[in-house]
Amino acid sequence: MTQTASVQTLSETPDPEALVNGLARAARAAQRRLAAMSSEARAAALHKAADRLEASADAILEANAEDLAAGEARGLAKAMLDRLALDEARLAGIAAAVRAVADLPDPVGQVIDRSERPNGLAFQRIRVPIGTIGIIYESRPNVTADAAALCVRAGNAALLRGGSEAVHSNRAIHAALAEGLAEGGVPAEAVQLIPTQDRAAVGAMLAAAGLIDMIVPRGGKSLVARVQADARVPVLAHLDGICHTYVHAAADAGMARDIALNAKLRRTGICGAMETLLIDADFPDAAGLVAALIDKGCEVRGDERIRALDARVIPASANDWDTEYLDAVLSVAMVDGLDAALEHIARHSSGHTDAIVTSDEAAAERFLGEVDSAIVMHNASSQFADGGEFGLGAEIGIATGRLHARGPVALEGLTTYKWQVRGTGQTRP
Amino acid sequence: MTQTASVQTLSETPDPEALVNGLARAARAAQRRLAAMSSEARAAALHKAADRLEASADAILEANAEDLAAGEARGLAKAMLDRLALDEARLAGIAAAVRAVADLPDPVGQVIDRSERPNGLAFQRIRVPIGTIGIIYESRPNVTADAAALCVRAGNAALLRGGSEAVHSNRAIHAALAEGLAEGGVPAEAVQLIPTQDRAAVGAMLAAAGLIDMIVPRGGKSLVARVQADARVPVLAHLDGICHTYVHAAADAGMARDIALNAKLRRTGICGAMETLLIDADFPDAAGLVAALIDKGCEVRGDERIRALDARVIPASANDWDTEYLDAVLSVAMVDGLDAALEHIARHSSGHTDAIVTSDEAAAERFLGEVDSAIVMHNASSQFADGGEFGLGAEIGIATGRLHARGPVALEGLTTYKWQVRGTGQTRP
Repeated sequence: MTQTASVQTLSETPDPEALVNGLARAARAAQRRLAAMSSEARAAALHKAADRLEASADAILEANAEDLAAGEARGLAKAMLDRLALDEARLAGIAAAVRAVADLPDPVGQVIDRSERPNGLAFQRIRVPIGTIGIIYESRPNVTADAAALCVRAGNAALLRGGSEAVHSNRAIHAALAEGLAEGGVPAEAVQLIPTQDRAAVGAMLAAAGLIDMIVPRGGKSLVARVQADARVPVLAHLDGICHTYVHAAADAGMARDIALNAKLRRTGICGAMETLLIDADFPDAAGLVAALIDKGCEVRGDERIRALDARVIPASANDWDTEYLDAVLSVAMVDGLDAALEHIARHSSGHTDAIVTSDEAAAERFLGEVDSAIVMHNASSQFADGGEFGLGAEIGIATGRLHARGPVALEGLTTYKWQVRGTGQTRP
Repeated sequence: MTQTASVQTLSETPDPEALVNGLARAARAAQRRLAAMSSEARAAALHKAADRLEASADAILEANAEDLAAGEARGLAKAMLDRLALDEARLAGIAAAVRAVADLPDPVGQVIDRSERPNGLAFQRIRVPIGTIGIIYESRPNVTADAAALCVRAGNAALLRGGSEAVHSNRAIHAALAEGLAEGGVPAEAVQLIPTQDRAAVGAMLAAAGLIDMIVPRGGKSLVARVQADARVPVLAHLDGICHTYVHAAADAGMARDIALNAKLRRTGICGAMETLLIDADFPDAAGLVAALIDKGCEVRGDERIRALDARVIPASANDWDTEYLDAVLSVAMVDGLDAALEHIARHSSGHTDAIVTSDEAAAERFLGEVDSAIVMHNASSQFADGGEFGLGAEIGIATGRLHARGPVALEGLTTYKWQVRGTGQTRP
């Protein structure tokens, strides 16, 4: 049946570019009406959407079972099937996340700053929605609801393009969301799921400069790399999370061990996981730190001086310093002082999250000042690199680009600003 | 001689891409050292650069005379020769502008916000330089100094690519700047003039994603359009300034006339000049307003109802509503109320500056809220769309994109931020 629907869609719209551009134009018109709604009305509509998600549990889980069966038949990896799978508890979590976003403070309309000029003109910058956000994602169907909720909370239209392996789940989630949002007065075109799995539709989204205002890719490195390479629309993303922890000479040995173990091993597959440990040559417990990691099951790839500490250390190759393992594997280098650590990080960091462990405040401040990454930390695990942990309530993603927004991006990053100028008839001399 | 120098440059660097990438890498390394300088040191270096500009007046004016002679020989338009020409007074103005930028408050290191989480982690966002800014500009040699000063003040490296018609002037200005900046301790590679006029060098700058962090085009529409079409690097710019003024039914007739005349005719060639006037059908002085514009030498192209007001009105074609005249020409439409004005602006505005004239506060607030342009004004001339008039002290340009910065962009727009996280050994549960 889906096959048929999909073929019909394609035959009705032979040109994915025309399809995507048409959807984006409709989204833009809907976004204007969404932005004109009150903050309370947008929040209330999101609550209705969350209610509908729960009320539609049977349909969503049935659709999800269809995706899982197709995935198993296609031999999808177990990890991917797990990311795809929904149950009552996960669905309740998705609805709860939508409610949490609905209850976040609305950034739209916030005044950033005000000033008045001698001629009496009064200036203020206020936050406004960006417009239409394209989200391109892979197997996790929860992104359909999360991303839509964040966009709507900040007054943006969302064009969602999920992965083909989750197509039935995404349609069912989107249908439930759309029903709730419509009950709450949100125009239907404000949250759209691209109705074709044709890969050319992704290319059309990336090319839709002027129609889509920002693209957020959510998924593996190959997806992000493709989006970054091809997009004509601004992209908010991170490609790599090559996160460093530098254990300074003046680090507390117990703290260094706790932080290193947590930063590497709490969850190895997240972008904030430590991938390289730099140990100062003057740190007295280097051998104990390396042994603790190996004892906990971490493969350690070290330079010559690290290998001299423990026979279990594997020689690191030049590539290791630029590798995001996303696994229980760690590259470890010994460095001669803070400058050498800063130099290593400047050369190899992906600009995501880098941390120092030290009880020397001056060294910490230099590190926090000079390391040029989206997130710099002192005496904390890099696994805290997450919008929720930052108190943002949620995140649309983590950005390592340099413009607009960096690090965890939540509602504020989904807004821009405009200048409002109030006069009393001023003309320019 | 220049021919020879230029040929030598080309033969030494047959590949503009390799040349530009090498310069950008050197700029990035220099930018790290620039960012480590104190705010006072960067300001002092800019004062030395301004001193050197004045001390090098003879050399700069001689170089400028060479450009002017070449331009005349090539038959450059008078307006272009005027933009190119320098004299003692203009040069003093350039030096004064550099000093003014040096004395602006430094955005680098400013704390945007702070928070603390229940687990004791302390978060703050602080402003940091963007990195390496590419500036691609046309005939005005003052851009060499203005753009370099703004970049350096905010801790950024600048890669400058001026127009071929100003090549000698730009080299002489850059040489003076570089001398002063070096005296002040700024690394030489932090402000570089691309040493070839090969057009492929521009293409290489636009393609240098990861090496150049942002491109600012300064010049005519064709330059901006090319940069926006080809850039793989984020661009801060505006393509068009199709600015509207809406004279509401409740506008004061005298104020409406003053603002319209100023917005259109004070200077017709700037991006903030009004290009379309919308007159409410219920505004009682429509005929007087149109007549005043025509009496002052403005060509008015109107719709049917405007033409009925004055026999001198020329019929507007559909294209007129999307045309930036940059001349004493104006399209004028009669609209039925605020909603019709908002609809016209949503369809035709380039998102630069749009204004309402009214004494009805509720109508003004709706206009300021709903018009989705970088700058929205009430009872003021759109010719105020300028960083200096906004109190920013200077501007690198005016942006009509939706991300990062909108409207007049000065020092703050040349920064990004990073998250500093301070802990006491926290690990993530």
